[in-house]
Amino acid sequence: MPHRGRAPTPTLERLAIYFAVLTDLKRRQAVTISSADVEERTGINAAQFRKDLSYFGEFGRPGIGYGVDELYSAIARILKIEQAQPVLLVGAGNLGSALMGYPALRADSFRIVAAFDNNPGKIGEQLWDLTIRDVAYLIEDNKTCRAKIAIITVPAAAAQDVAEQLVDAGIRNILNFAPVALKLPADVIVRRVDFVQELAVLSFHLPDSNSGR
Amino acid sequence: MPHRGRAPTPTLERLAIYFAVLTDLKRRQAVTISSADVEERTGINAAQFRKDLSYFGEFGRPGIGYGVDELYSAIARILKIEQAQPVLLVGAGNLGSALMGYPALRADSFRIVAAFDNNPGKIGEQLWDLTIRDVAYLIEDNKTCRAKIAIITVPAAAAQDVAEQLVDAGIRNILNFAPVALKLPADVIVRRVDFVQELAVLSFHLPDSNSGR
Repeated sequence: MPHRGRAPTPTLERLAIYFAVLTDLKRRQAVTISSADVEERTGINAAQFRKDLSYFGEFGRPGIGYGVDELYSAIARILKIEQAQPVLLVGAGNLGSALMGYPALRADSFRIVAAFDNNPGKIGEQLWDLTIRDVAYLIEDNKTCRAKIAIITVPAAAAQDVAEQLVDAGIRNILNFAPVALKLPADVIVRRVDFVQELAVLSFHLPDSNSGR
Repeated sequence: MPHRGRAPTPTLERLAIYFAVLTDLKRRQAVTISSADVEERTGINAAQFRKDLSYFGEFGRPGIGYGVDELYSAIARILKIEQAQPVLLVGAGNLGSALMGYPALRADSFRIVAAFDNNPGKIGEQLWDLTIRDVAYLIEDNKTCRAKIAIITVPAAAAQDVAEQLVDAGIRNILNFAPVALKLPADVIVRRVDFVQELAVLSFHLPDSNSGR
């Protein structure tokens, strides 16, 4: 896979979108897809699609298109989701439990395999197919789960502490929903989802006439 | 406000982070903040912070720092959240109801003012301080709410239809949680939050030894 290390983050983000399209096509037993089909389904233009794939090798045949199975497998391999990646979740509040029940996080690519909380009222509670565990068992439990990815859905004040415990438990990559910047060793990768930030960017783009509402 | 139109999206995203810090400082009655303090709290380096602000004017004084109230007001004005921006939500499932209860979306900058669903079992149900409305009343209800921003948390198959109804109801900016690309008029701005995509980018960065679990 040439250039692999050099693929920019937006390419990786789009790769996940292509993978979702291919998952759907595979389910419908489609055999090939053209870059024009990809554009039609994703809004990402065909040239961008071809460029994104070029980071990882040569795919597709002129006039025929891309083999659905072949491209599905290739992207699964690139994204390391040929087998479901196990994911831990810490913080079984409203957002955490919504994520636990989110269909795509109970599926073949990623699977929340354990959920933790520090609230005695929640520990032991059954949510979806999991029993909420005491966060004190994080390290112990992950000896079995062997997850490398975790989701943090605790309040901001608790997030740094939880993140450090996750790192001690062997987690290298964190998806952080708490509105706080985590300070972690340089080899731990954190992505943050901040709903207010998303809305703020939208709000900025509102016409000025709306500003005084 | 010089250069305003030219501020890149990452600058706007960071502006929302600075605003969160300033909101916290204002609550603690802090008077000034330095760019070094911002770096300490956000992990965004001081030079970047100064550059981000420079798109919007001149702020701060050498040796003194930035007036918390002044900068808070300036960013609120830039992001058009001096008064709470009303937000509609469509899709009162697990994720939608978690967002409705999410503290930051019940606060001073953004406020979910109405929630809609098409499920007769949910319509009329009380969630937090809102009564779920029939999505058929979207246009009618937004004559009162006058929201310009909406959140879509319906299943992928329903998202395009809902998005078109939102546009008809006067919504210009959409935060889309459904894993699907929306096709809307060019003046409608859509931002997408895709949990699987976020995890996929993290997964890609796992060490290769982990790929087979």
